[in-house]
Amino acid sequence: MIILFGLFVRYDEESDAHWSEHKHENNITSDIENDFYYRYPSFQDVHVMIFVGFGFLMTFLKRYSFGGVGFNFLIAAFGLQWALLMQGWFHSLDPADGQIKIGIENIINADFCVAGCLIAYGALLGKVSPVQLMVLTLFGITLFAVEEYIILHVLHVRDAGGSMVIHTFGAYYGLTISWILYRPKLNQSKNLSGSVYHSDVFAMIGTLFLWMFWPSFNSAIADHGDGQHRAAINTYLALAASVLTTFAISSLSAKRGKLDMVHIQNATLAGGVAMGTAAEFMITTYGSLIVGFCCGIISTFGYLVITPFMEKYMKIQDTCGIHNLHAMPGVLGAVVGAITAATASESVYGHEGLVNTFDFKGKYAERTPAMQGGFQAAGLCVALAFGIVGGAIVGFILRLPFWGDPSDDNCFDDELYWEKCSLVFPSI
Amino acid sequence: MIILFGLFVRYDEESDAHWSEHKHENNITSDIENDFYYRYPSFQDVHVMIFVGFGFLMTFLKRYSFGGVGFNFLIAAFGLQWALLMQGWFHSLDPADGQIKIGIENIINADFCVAGCLIAYGALLGKVSPVQLMVLTLFGITLFAVEEYIILHVLHVRDAGGSMVIHTFGAYYGLTISWILYRPKLNQSKNLSGSVYHSDVFAMIGTLFLWMFWPSFNSAIADHGDGQHRAAINTYLALAASVLTTFAISSLSAKRGKLDMVHIQNATLAGGVAMGTAAEFMITTYGSLIVGFCCGIISTFGYLVITPFMEKYMKIQDTCGIHNLHAMPGVLGAVVGAITAATASESVYGHEGLVNTFDFKGKYAERTPAMQGGFQAAGLCVALAFGIVGGAIVGFILRLPFWGDPSDDNCFDDELYWEKCSLVFPSI
Amino acid sequence: MIILFGLFVRYDEESDAHWSEHKHENNITSDIENDFYYRYPSFQDVHVMIFVGFGFLMTFLKRYSFGGVGFNFLIAAFGLQWALLMQGWFHSLDPADGQIKIGIENIINADFCVAGCLIAYGALLGKVSPVQLMVLTLFGITLFAVEEYIILHVLHVRDAGGSMVIHTFGAYYGLTISWILYRPKLNQSKNLSGSVYHSDVFAMIGTLFLWMFWPSFNSAIADHGDGQHRAAINTYLALAASVLTTFAISSLSAKRGKLDMVHIQNATLAGGVAMGTAAEFMITTYGSLIVGFCCGIISTFGYLVITPFMEKYMKIQDTCGIHNLHAMPGVLGAVVGAITAATASESVYGHEGLVNTFDFKGKYAERTPAMQGGFQAAGLCVALAFGIVGGAIVGFILRLPFWGDPSDDNCFDDELYWEKCSLVFPSI
Repeated sequence: MIILFGLFVRYDEESDAHWSEHKHENNITSDIENDFYYRYPSFQDVHVMIFVGFGFLMTFLKRYSFGGVGFNFLIAAFGLQWALLMQGWFHSLDPADGQIKIGIENIINADFCVAGCLIAYGALLGKVSPVQLMVLTLFGITLFAVEEYIILHVLHVRDAGGSMVIHTFGAYYGLTISWILYRPKLNQSKNLSGSVYHSDVFAMIGTLFLWMFWPSFNSAIADHGDGQHRAAINTYLALAASVLTTFAISSLSAKRGKLDMVHIQNATLAGGVAMGTAAEFMITTYGSLIVGFCCGIISTFGYLVITPFMEKYMKIQDTCGIHNLHAMPGVLGAVVGAITAATASESVYGHEGLVNTFDFKGKYAERTPAMQGGFQAAGLCVALAFGIVGGAIVGFILRLPFWGDPSDDNCFDDELYWEKCSLVFPSI
Repeated sequence: MIILFGLFVRYDEESDAHWSEHKHENNITSDIENDFYYRYPSFQDVHVMIFVGFGFLMTFLKRYSFGGVGFNFLIAAFGLQWALLMQGWFHSLDPADGQIKIGIENIINADFCVAGCLIAYGALLGKVSPVQLMVLTLFGITLFAVEEYIILHVLHVRDAGGSMVIHTFGAYYGLTISWILYRPKLNQSKNLSGSVYHSDVFAMIGTLFLWMFWPSFNSAIADHGDGQHRAAINTYLALAASVLTTFAISSLSAKRGKLDMVHIQNATLAGGVAMGTAAEFMITTYGSLIVGFCCGIISTFGYLVITPFMEKYMKIQDTCGIHNLHAMPGVLGAVVGAITAATASESVYGHEGLVNTFDFKGKYAERTPAMQGGFQAAGLCVALAFGIVGGAIVGFILRLPFWGDPSDDNCFDDELYWEKCSLVFPSI
Repeated sequence: MIILFGLFVRYDEESDAHWSEHKHENNITSDIENDFYYRYPSFQDVHVMIFVGFGFLMTFLKRYSFGGVGFNFLIAAFGLQWALLMQGWFHSLDPADGQIKIGIENIINADFCVAGCLIAYGALLGKVSPVQLMVLTLFGITLFAVEEYIILHVLHVRDAGGSMVIHTFGAYYGLTISWILYRPKLNQSKNLSGSVYHSDVFAMIGTLFLWMFWPSFNSAIADHGDGQHRAAINTYLALAASVLTTFAISSLSAKRGKLDMVHIQNATLAGGVAMGTAAEFMITTYGSLIVGFCCGIISTFGYLVITPFMEKYMKIQDTCGIHNLHAMPGVLGAVVGAITAATASESVYGHEGLVNTFDFKGKYAERTPAMQGGFQAAGLCVALAFGIVGGAIVGFILRLPFWGDPSDDNCFDDELYWEKCSLVFPSI
């Protein structure tokens, strides 16, 4: 990694000490115009989502909290280095000298790239070894970079918060791997596959940080100015609507109206996933609420019905229920994005606003909103294809017998990979 | 909610895609002048305070951690949608087309509005049903919006961090409801009304996030530039002073000098509450320390003496002690604000600074600091009146028999509203 | 404290209400040029590191979580007030009126100053009384301010993230005190000196917030523009590399390849410590990775070998292992900084970039990079000397018999200082 960085990675204009000269040449009058100040607060929020959000959301298992937060930490830290290289080769290569120029936007994108792999980890939580996770991440990041290049650059699709690029891809990648690594005797670990009281409270730390910072996630790389502003507000509204429907459906579906902590921890976030594509568009405030409302229903319903169905009949064991939180809302988000793009008009966006929002510049100057809608839909197909085909290939690699995966009766147990757990674990 | 948003809510100029044209018209040269960049970091800090701060502070009960963080999540997410509408009607209605224009400042204000209701929840924690909380929030937000309109717009009072508008109102609203819902046999739930070791550590997550981000809370909607800067510094100093006095009083008041975790979790925050009005004024650094010092004493003393007294003789059961953390420091903060305003002068603020800080513009151009001090005091009376009268009305509504509130021996128990708690709860 | 603030502390130009006039005089066109907007997001990240990061990292002991997070809170809040005065006298004294002018940069520096004392607390965790901690903080802050003045102003050394000023000083200060307060019979508290499952998960909250926000720590007071940008990216890379080597070494060193939670909680952070000096330099991306790589190895190796060795043969009991996390990486960081500075050139930095990065202005206009390298090395010696000599003096003061320190069999036990712990503590 060090050698690759040494050969290929350099600072970009805004993080290089030649910035002062760059300012003079480009008539930039103030340091605050450095992209750093537009994006750093959002970057840190995204960073918190990746490490604390995903990490703590995965501590809910009664004896796999170390693995949840620890392996999340490992693969995220590994993945973001690899992502800087992979995404850099596709997106930030400077043709003048053949080197990757990195700045704040690259490290946000690396976090996004890692998010795709962490989503996939959600389906496999407790059932794979750390070495398998490293392999999953290595291939996942690579596939992600190619998929993202095709969607964003070849098809020129807009996907600032990654409904397609991150969530749809990540979820189908993980679900396909989980399907290939199906364990028919997983119920031997049944006594460890639930939560205890305090592990559920730990998981709520993850849920809340994901929920709060999702507006930053969807706006982090949106256009300066109104784009970031609107993306944050739309996501905020969709998330708020998801919470209400999740509580309602969770309560209505249970005997005696009790709430299920699994729904609250997960389905409340579905609105953010589904706004990943459309957040920067003029989807309107009530449009955002409708998206959040629908996702809360779909996602909670998924936990109630679809996850058990998939486990029983389709042989897909999905520990965290990523199908409900990422796959379905991601696809929905892509569809919403395509429709919103297709119906965009100058009367709603203004001429300049339309050009900026969809980046109808250069060789895309002739593209119309209707065409853009079609390309958005094509982007979704690409994400699905990469997730499923990539997942199948990586799944077969991970089935090779030398990765040290746990036996069926050792799943969901930290003792296998962590020192001293048995000594310190309270009686269950 | 979706229909109401559809009818009434639109993006404002800075979150609308017409921003580019708005920039040209108003000679704004850079996207970084979008209000988003002035306020978004503070917004996220406030957001963390609402969801993680309040949420985790309320996990301290040994068997009500799910309810503490979960219902806090529910009513905050519900409340902020309702608040966007209610506050919008009063503050952001565009007279040209009769629609509410929302941007970053509106979503910060919605979080503030929700804070008032979460404070009220603190007095009722563990004793009411989620449906009652929704009703409390619905009316609370509505009352808040009216009260805020009268205080900030009719009386033209300055209250950037909401000592009056948020804390005084919210606390008396909650205490009055608690008084009306008095449960004489609450000691039947006595064995569940305490904490366990780890629930106290969870609560410290809430305390620390509230404490750290309070400077953002008090500065989030202060004036651009020196106003936000000064509000953050003043709040920071007051909070630091509160911590020292809280530790000192807690230790001095106990046999053998032991500290009480309840004081540390709560009274350390009192300085932030009390700086809610005066933070953006030129209260001086030592003025901030004095306010923090006094509040730490008053608040810790409240936990030691006043809360037990109120429960025994005044029939007010205050689960989280909001009287000590919000009511008394809120009133003190309003008084400090009135005095600081009344003694403001051009020699201290400069001519332009005085006009900006107190917004002596337009029809308020003739107002003097002394008059402003009087209006500040009037604002406090309005907040108190709305809290007590509003709380009384809502209290009687909540006493109606069909809200599904827990019986006296089921209070402070998650099992009533959450699935599977009994299975996963460790022995106490 | 209030009196001292009343006599000496005033708002600076950017937090004073005269800012409007200051703007006119200096042709500043926008409020966003107020230093507040350059630094506030980083400030809040640093603030989270101090209170949540350090605080929760120290909750890992099974019965000392209250003391870990609570006393951290106390000494941080006390220390930052004292630091504003001490650092103010040395750095921000306005010669015109003999008063300290404070703004956002001062409160960031106060947090930095406090960090030095919290590092020292790490060595003493569980073995000293709160009164001893107050004394340690009082002297520590004072020593820090003098040491910082000598290093940054007299020697004109660059140390934006404080490898020398904060980490090296703080660690040797704490280790020397711990050496003087050596307890030969500490093994009487052996049964309380470990962790339990959930206390380790709490500690991971601290680890992750430290890890995520370290780029803000190292960039918080770096130069506007490219300096802050580059410091964040370099730190991010070094931290990512540390995580990988820590997991690798931890796994390779154990029988059956199991991971040790102590390493993951601590050694993963070493890369951030070691980038404290060089982060704002043009150290290159692969340079950052190399530093992180080396530190992960050194630090994990320290936990495996050096800490037990020091405890057995050198009579230094280091509860949190600060020698591995702060002392060694801090010294390494200072050396890396000196080398990077000595090899700086105009071809890499550009003329203006070199002047800005090393502040070769005014009376330092004649300094060359090679000379700067020498001064950087001299700065390290000053930090070491202050840490060791200061620690020795304060250690002897703390050995006086009236500070109420715990007996050897009461160490690591919250019951001594906190009410009701025994009632609420779960069986171990």
